[in-house]
Amino acid sequence: MKWSCPPIAEPSPEIARAAAAEIDQKTKPLGSLGRLEALAQQIGAIQGTLRPSLASPAVLVFAGDHGLTEEGVSLYPQAVTAQMVLNFLRGGAAISVFARQHGLALHVIDAGVAAAEPFAWKHIQDAKLHLHAKSRIRPGTRNALHEPAMTNEELDGALGVGDALVSQLSAEGSNAVLFGEMGIGNTSAAALLMSALFDLPVAQCVGRGTGLDDAGIARKIDVLARVLARHAPELAHARAGARGGAASGTEEPGAASHALAALKCLGGYELAMTAGAMLRAAAQRMVIVNDGFITSAALAVAAKIEPRVLRYVVASHQSAEAAHARLLGELGLSPLLNLQLRLGEGTGAALAWPLIQSAVGFLNEMATFASAGVSEA
Amino acid sequence: MKWSCPPIAEPSPEIARAAAAEIDQKTKPLGSLGRLEALAQQIGAIQGTLRPSLASPAVLVFAGDHGLTEEGVSLYPQAVTAQMVLNFLRGGAAISVFARQHGLALHVIDAGVAAAEPFAWKHIQDAKLHLHAKSRIRPGTRNALHEPAMTNEELDGALGVGDALVSQLSAEGSNAVLFGEMGIGNTSAAALLMSALFDLPVAQCVGRGTGLDDAGIARKIDVLARVLARHAPELAHARAGARGGAASGTEEPGAASHALAALKCLGGYELAMTAGAMLRAAAQRMVIVNDGFITSAALAVAAKIEPRVLRYVVASHQSAEAAHARLLGELGLSPLLNLQLRLGEGTGAALAWPLIQSAVGFLNEMATFASAGVSEA
Repeated sequence: MKWSCPPIAEPSPEIARAAAAEIDQKTKPLGSLGRLEALAQQIGAIQGTLRPSLASPAVLVFAGDHGLTEEGVSLYPQAVTAQMVLNFLRGGAAISVFARQHGLALHVIDAGVAAAEPFAWKHIQDAKLHLHAKSRIRPGTRNALHEPAMTNEELDGALGVGDALVSQLSAEGSNAVLFGEMGIGNTSAAALLMSALFDLPVAQCVGRGTGLDDAGIARKIDVLARVLARHAPELAHARAGARGGAASGTEEPGAASHALAALKCLGGYELAMTAGAMLRAAAQRMVIVNDGFITSAALAVAAKIEPRVLRYVVASHQSAEAAHARLLGELGLSPLLNLQLRLGEGTGAALAWPLIQSAVGFLNEMATFASAGVSEA
Repeated sequence: MKWSCPPIAEPSPEIARAAAAEIDQKTKPLGSLGRLEALAQQIGAIQGTLRPSLASPAVLVFAGDHGLTEEGVSLYPQAVTAQMVLNFLRGGAAISVFARQHGLALHVIDAGVAAAEPFAWKHIQDAKLHLHAKSRIRPGTRNALHEPAMTNEELDGALGVGDALVSQLSAEGSNAVLFGEMGIGNTSAAALLMSALFDLPVAQCVGRGTGLDDAGIARKIDVLARVLARHAPELAHARAGARGGAASGTEEPGAASHALAALKCLGGYELAMTAGAMLRAAAQRMVIVNDGFITSAALAVAAKIEPRVLRYVVASHQSAEAAHARLLGELGLSPLLNLQLRLGEGTGAALAWPLIQSAVGFLNEMATFASAGVSEA
C-alpha cells in the first residue's frame, strides 16, 4: 500500500486542565454550561491553546455507489446518488442550505458515483462549493455478496484521496472538517462494517435506512448476513496474520489489519475516503465533526487503525437510524444533538456547528469573576 | 387590574398541513429531518405562511431580586444579580457572547434589582444591547415567607411592562422573542410556582439551583414548604372564587385567577414580566423561544391564564435543574437540546436559535424531488 496511517499525537492534557481551571473562573455557576465546557476543553487541547479559534471549516460530502444495491437493500434506486450530487451542486439539498447558513465551505467528492455522466458535473451555484470529480475510483463498488467491494489498489487509492484532500485543506488554513456522505446502499455497508468491527450480530447493526418497512429490513438482514459469511475467512485471516504487527497506538493486536480488510471487503469508496480523511485530520490536529451512522462506521474503521483519532472527534448527533446509538457507544462518543435526523449528507454535523462555535466563543470571550467584579459562591 | 390577557389565536392548522405536504416533497427521505420538520410546520403556522422568515430576533433578559433570599435559599449573595446585570451590559456574560454570535438583540430589563445604584447602569458595549432601567418595580420582591411577594398593583405593573415591551418590539418589526432571566433566588420562586400550579409536592420541584449541596437543598425545601403553607388559603380562595369566571380559552375553571394569585404571592417581578411578555408575543403571532427552569415557570403561569400561548413556544432545551424535565412534561413541550446547561440568562434559547433558523431555511430553500429531478422511493 502507498497509504499509511499518519502519526497522531494526543491532544494536550495540560491545556485541557488549564482550560477547565479557566472555565471555572468564568462568570457562571460551576459547570453550568454543561456539555459546552468539555467541548471547549477538547478544542483547546486539540489546538494546544487556551485561545482556540475555528478557521475555514469545511464540509466534505463523499459520494459513492454500492454494487450491493443489486440485491435490493435500499428503497431508492441507485440513480439517486448522482441526482443528489447534482442537487448539492445546484444548492437545493439540505446540506446545501445548512452549509450556506453557517458559512461552511461545501466539498462534494465523487468517490465513485455509478451514473453514466459523472464527469459532466458542472452545476456549481455557490462560491464556497467545491467539486472533486477526479477523485472517483470506479463507478460504484463491486457487489460484496460475490467478491470484495474493492480491490487492495482501490482501497489504497481511496484512503489516499481522503488523506490528500484534508492535507490540502489544512495547508490552506482550515482547522475543522465536518463529514458527510451520499450513497444509496451505504447504510448496508456501514452495518456490515459495524458488525465485523465489533463482532455484533448484523441484526443489531441495521436500521430502516431511507425508509424500509419490516419486510425490507428482514431482506436486508438476510443479504448482509450472507455477505458477512462470504468474507468471514478473509477477515479472520487478516486479524490472525497481523497479530504482533499492530500499528502504534492500536490496543487490539491485528485490529488495524482487520479493519482495513473489512473496509476492502464490505465498505465503500466514500467510506474509505472518509476514514483516510479523518486520520489525516487528526494528524493535522484539526477538529473532526462526525455526522450520522455512515460516517460513524468510517470513523470506527479509522479508530481501529489508530484509536487516538477519537480524541479529535466531536459527535454532532445521534441519528434515528436504529444502530447509531449503539455504534456511538462502542466508540465512546456522546452526541450533542438528538433531533431524530436520519438524512446524512453532513446535515447533523452542520446543525451542531454553531454549538462548537459557542464553546470556543465562551472560552475566549466570557469575563471572569475577578475581571467582572462578580461575587463567588 | 389595568393589564388583561390579550386575545391569542390558534396558529393556522391549514398552513401546518400544507407545510407538512411540502416538506414531504423535499429532496430527502420522508421524515428524515426529524424534529426540524415539526418546527418548520409550527413556525409556518404561527406566521400563517409557507414562506416564514425570522426578523429582528430579540433576547429579553428580565432581572429581579427576591426577598426570600433572606432565608438562605441560594448559594450566591443577592448582590450577584446587579453584578451580573453589569456583566451583561459590559458584554462579558455567557448570554452576551451567544447573542453576539447569533446577531440577537439583547434587551436587559431591570425588573427589580436590589442593588443601591441600579439607575446608574450605563455600561453598554454593543449597539444591539438595550437597557430598560425604568421598568423596575421595586428593589426586589417582598419575602414570601411573611407576605405576598408583590402587591396586586406591582403584579399588574410587571405584567404590563412585559406586555408593552413586546408590543414595542413587534411594532418595530421583530417576530421572534427569546426569553432569559437573572435573579439570585429565582429557582426558588420558580419551584414555588411549579408546585402551586401543578399541585406537586415542593420536593419534586426543587433542584440545586446555582449549586446547592444536599443540606442546602433540604433547607430550601423546608423554607419553600413553609412559604406554600403561608399562601395556601389565598390561592385556594382565588381558584374557588373564580370558578365559572374563567378567561376565554382556559380549560380549568379558576386556573387563570389561581395562576395570577400564585404569581403575586410566590413569584418575582422578572417572572411576572416574562409571563406578560410571552402572552403578548403569542397575541402578536411571534415565535416564543423558551429557556430553562425559570422561564418555564413563567410560561406555566402564562399557559394557565391562556393555554394557546403554548402553540407559539419552541422549547429550546432541557436544563440540568432537576425539576425542569418534569415541568416541560407538564407543559407538553419537547426540548430541542439537552446539553446539561443550568445557567439561565437565555443561554439555552440562544444556543437553539440556529436550529430554528435551519428549520425555516430548509422549508424555504430546499429543492423538491420534481424541481431537482430526483427519483422518489
